[in-house]
Amino acid sequence: MAVVLGPNRYGKAETRLVRVVRDGGVHHLKDLSVSTALSGDMEAVHLTGDNAAVLPTDTQKNTVYALARSRGVDQIEDFALALARHFVDSQPTIRHARVEIEEYSWERIPPAAPGAGERRHSFVRAGTEVRTCLVHHDESGRSTVVSGLRDLTVLNTTGSEFHGFIRDAYTTLEPTTDRVLATAVRARWRHVSPDSDFAGSYREVRRRLLEAFAGTHSLSLQQTLYAMGRSVLAGRPEICEVRLALPNRHHFLVDLEPFGLDNPGEVYFAADRPYGLIEGAVLTEDAPGAGSAWD
Amino acid sequence: MAVVLGPNRYGKAETRLVRVVRDGGVHHLKDLSVSTALSGDMEAVHLTGDNAAVLPTDTQKNTVYALARSRGVDQIEDFALALARHFVDSQPTIRHARVEIEEYSWERIPPAAPGAGERRHSFVRAGTEVRTCLVHHDESGRSTVVSGLRDLTVLNTTGSEFHGFIRDAYTTLEPTTDRVLATAVRARWRHVSPDSDFAGSYREVRRRLLEAFAGTHSLSLQQTLYAMGRSVLAGRPEICEVRLALPNRHHFLVDLEPFGLDNPGEVYFAADRPYGLIEGAVLTEDAPGAGSAWD
Amino acid sequence: MAVVLGPNRYGKAETRLVRVVRDGGVHHLKDLSVSTALSGDMEAVHLTGDNAAVLPTDTQKNTVYALARSRGVDQIEDFALALARHFVDSQPTIRHARVEIEEYSWERIPPAAPGAGERRHSFVRAGTEVRTCLVHHDESGRSTVVSGLRDLTVLNTTGSEFHGFIRDAYTTLEPTTDRVLATAVRARWRHVSPDSDFAGSYREVRRRLLEAFAGTHSLSLQQTLYAMGRSVLAGRPEICEVRLALPNRHHFLVDLEPFGLDNPGEVYFAADRPYGLIEGAVLTEDAPGAGSAWD
Amino acid sequence: MAVVLGPNRYGKAETRLVRVVRDGGVHHLKDLSVSTALSGDMEAVHLTGDNAAVLPTDTQKNTVYALARSRGVDQIEDFALALARHFVDSQPTIRHARVEIEEYSWERIPPAAPGAGERRHSFVRAGTEVRTCLVHHDESGRSTVVSGLRDLTVLNTTGSEFHGFIRDAYTTLEPTTDRVLATAVRARWRHVSPDSDFAGSYREVRRRLLEAFAGTHSLSLQQTLYAMGRSVLAGRPEICEVRLALPNRHHFLVDLEPFGLDNPGEVYFAADRPYGLIEGAVLTEDAPGAGSAWD
Repeated sequence: MAVVLGPNRYGKAETRLVRVVRDGGVHHLKDLSVSTALSGDMEAVHLTGDNAAVLPTDTQKNTVYALARSRGVDQIEDFALALARHFVDSQPTIRHARVEIEEYSWERIPPAAPGAGERRHSFVRAGTEVRTCLVHHDESGRSTVVSGLRDLTVLNTTGSEFHGFIRDAYTTLEPTTDRVLATAVRARWRHVSPDSDFAGSYREVRRRLLEAFAGTHSLSLQQTLYAMGRSVLAGRPEICEVRLALPNRHHFLVDLEPFGLDNPGEVYFAADRPYGLIEGAVLTEDAPGAGSAWD
Repeated sequence: MAVVLGPNRYGKAETRLVRVVRDGGVHHLKDLSVSTALSGDMEAVHLTGDNAAVLPTDTQKNTVYALARSRGVDQIEDFALALARHFVDSQPTIRHARVEIEEYSWERIPPAAPGAGERRHSFVRAGTEVRTCLVHHDESGRSTVVSGLRDLTVLNTTGSEFHGFIRDAYTTLEPTTDRVLATAVRARWRHVSPDSDFAGSYREVRRRLLEAFAGTHSLSLQQTLYAMGRSVLAGRPEICEVRLALPNRHHFLVDLEPFGLDNPGEVYFAADRPYGLIEGAVLTEDAPGAGSAWD
Repeated sequence: MAVVLGPNRYGKAETRLVRVVRDGGVHHLKDLSVSTALSGDMEAVHLTGDNAAVLPTDTQKNTVYALARSRGVDQIEDFALALARHFVDSQPTIRHARVEIEEYSWERIPPAAPGAGERRHSFVRAGTEVRTCLVHHDESGRSTVVSGLRDLTVLNTTGSEFHGFIRDAYTTLEPTTDRVLATAVRARWRHVSPDSDFAGSYREVRRRLLEAFAGTHSLSLQQTLYAMGRSVLAGRPEICEVRLALPNRHHFLVDLEPFGLDNPGEVYFAADRPYGLIEGAVLTEDAPGAGSAWD
Repeated sequence: MAVVLGPNRYGKAETRLVRVVRDGGVHHLKDLSVSTALSGDMEAVHLTGDNAAVLPTDTQKNTVYALARSRGVDQIEDFALALARHFVDSQPTIRHARVEIEEYSWERIPPAAPGAGERRHSFVRAGTEVRTCLVHHDESGRSTVVSGLRDLTVLNTTGSEFHGFIRDAYTTLEPTTDRVLATAVRARWRHVSPDSDFAGSYREVRRRLLEAFAGTHSLSLQQTLYAMGRSVLAGRPEICEVRLALPNRHHFLVDLEPFGLDNPGEVYFAADRPYGLIEGAVLTEDAPGAGSAWD
């Protein structure tokens, strides 16, 4: 039996980096988890344990910290691109780099009193959602950038229906014209080019996702998903593809009749498992090929 | 050998309740996890399995939903008190009730455009912190209320020192006059009376905790803890005791010297474990006895 | 308003220690998470930030590692006692030490072939349960030891009933004479003395807990809890108190009638939340006072 | 701008099924989490919310329970295939089904005494690892089966080296000829055919993974990964591809020199993050195309 080595990569996962910028007495904060993964001439290390082509994951971690100092961290996409390019450019045996970053958001603790100056170096975690990016760069010089967010948890108390579906021998669900629709948005969007205004793009995509979720009278979560993706593509020419994964966090109306009470859409049980899971991609018709962008 | 039954309780944990109020077309949302626990005449059930004195945990769950409908949910402390009193008053075998509630915060999704009206039924999860309460009520009619919060994550990039500590044979830590101080605040505060303006109290306690964390030039996390507790007691006469648990989430300055780089308080490694853990209580001198308030 | 400092402690939580013993070519493994917490003369540090009485949590961590080397780690209770006594004995300002340890179990990877010798240095994690201990030692020389385990997950597919309970206006639960009973055992037991054969004691207590769970025809989870505690006390004179927390992991029989199928105790939905939670203590009649043993 | 719908699927995730077989008084137990996902004629539901082609996720859940009753659950791969085929065969609008199952392992609670009969209906969770499978079936009749496991946590205390790697400006890691090698194995393996003895195959693959991990003197984790994959392929002709993801759970030797102690491979700090992550595939040279098997 002949055996061959298939696709492989290695790297350092979840390097936790907090970067402070001291602008006089006013400090700024970036809080990241950085995962790097490299591919290239890796036959020897797999077959014989010869590490001559291996850049240790410890060195990858050091590089994250060193570049955070030497070039700073602004938008995570730009920092990921810089890391990926550094790795591919620095060693001939490294032919491809993949960098994934999560960013946790902070805001300034409010002033002690109205009229007091802004806090200069005190912060509080803001929001549950996490901003993400996934960057690939290879020896041919091609870079791809996917931006995203996860755990943006949203809920409509009305404006959601679900009926007209297939009924078979295992159907017990009743159609409804008014239900709670709740999900924790996992969205990722592919940029046409690695040169983009990532800060502005992120802010606007996020706004559009929220707007489409809230503004769509929904006959199914798929319809909402598509509306969210379409809204992003319609308004953001720098983006050519959106992928969404929307868990349907079921909120079941509690039957209060046994207690002599009605329940006109007021008391719900929020279930954990199982949950619906709706996944889909929306693209512009002329989206370039994705290559390894989503790997 | 003679064996006796010691302290015991039983209940339904983490009943997930979402309560919607429909004020015309404008909806309001409460998102809770409710845990009830009852004590009383429980010898028989333990010794022989005789359930005659047992109110099933399933019934406790039903009661949470029914009271959410019939009386509504406003402040979690008031809802917990209503539940606890209901249980103790409804059955002679139930002599004590303990109700613990967590509340997850939501805010309205912003309007589609400046000038557009407020969203009426669309929400997004706000913040990582969770509001909590713990209520006890017993057959003598005594009620105690502890309010609180957890996962209020805060960080000062400067204004924190640590030196002058004991040095022994196992000491390697260097003193510092400038470090990052970060923690996820777990705070609980005991009310003098079960009749309180819990909404206003919560808002002000939270503000004071943040203010004291940000406003204290810290020589140790204990000093910050005490300042936080003292500030709450100083400004809120309805509260007689504050308990705080502050994990010291270490941010280690990365040594960049091997790479020819300095690191003047800019690049940190955020460590997971181990972490410092500072716990303490601060009381008013005339605080009444706590009884079972903290159990 | 006069404010006073209440109970407090500080320490290093979750120091992850893996201790290898190299007995010639045969290696042995201990995998621990150690949490230390000290109390004593802590007024100054809280009120003014004066750290003169503070043994830094970093030093506590170092001490864990140094003692692991110098005295070795055998039973976690003995190691915790050694740590607690070291802290209290080493510094006059430390008046009380609390040490909590979790131990993760490993077993040897089986031999490559029947008849091949035992693996000498290769291990695989065994079981989901975690062995625990909680030790207190104070300046008066008193030590207390509580041993325990958590996440010992067990399930009886029959031999469990639940009926004869209170019925009120919020009752919908039907009585049953045959249900699944499942729980993740959290058990802790207090030793009469800090000098004990902790290895043998642990093995036998665990065996008795399993035996009582499996061997009790249960009319309520409280009855099972009591039987578990009583069995431990009946057979282990070194133990004077057992505390148990048993989540009732509900397994609901799925209604298959809509699909023309019966369901004679064969197909269950395992629910996450809410869950019942049964907590109780069982003591010998002559158990000495617990002091701070459970804090 | 023209927008198109890309790949999509929808289903019910993490349906928790416990299946009991009552063989006279002797009971058997299967504990599963089942996730189903369907694809097909889904344009309308995305674009207009027309659900005519949608089999609700609630119905998918019901089907899991109904088939668990009517056909029973033996090997998870066979159950997943039955589900996938049912969905594709039952509705013309469903063109592809993906079923993922996790199985949690249980063993019988040991007899009360040596010589006592085997427990008939009492179980305890065994091991931390989870058995998995991923099955695809489409309207052309093609089925693919990937079996696997996760969280098989293993550790070698010696027999692992790491040296000869690239050194660059960011390298600080020292080469070593003796280190701890620990990982939580995530392995998945693709079957040549959907007709296989999945029980025997799983048992042997697991044995080979452990054997290769323990039996390989490792110069790098990649070498160990490849040896594990190769061993599976060498011994199991029913398998054509193995994919492994091995987090390198770093165990750092603690520097005890400041305390006057040596540390000859005895005291380690087990780190959480960051961690190395080594991922790779090993295939037989004549492995058929994977199609959507890994999606």
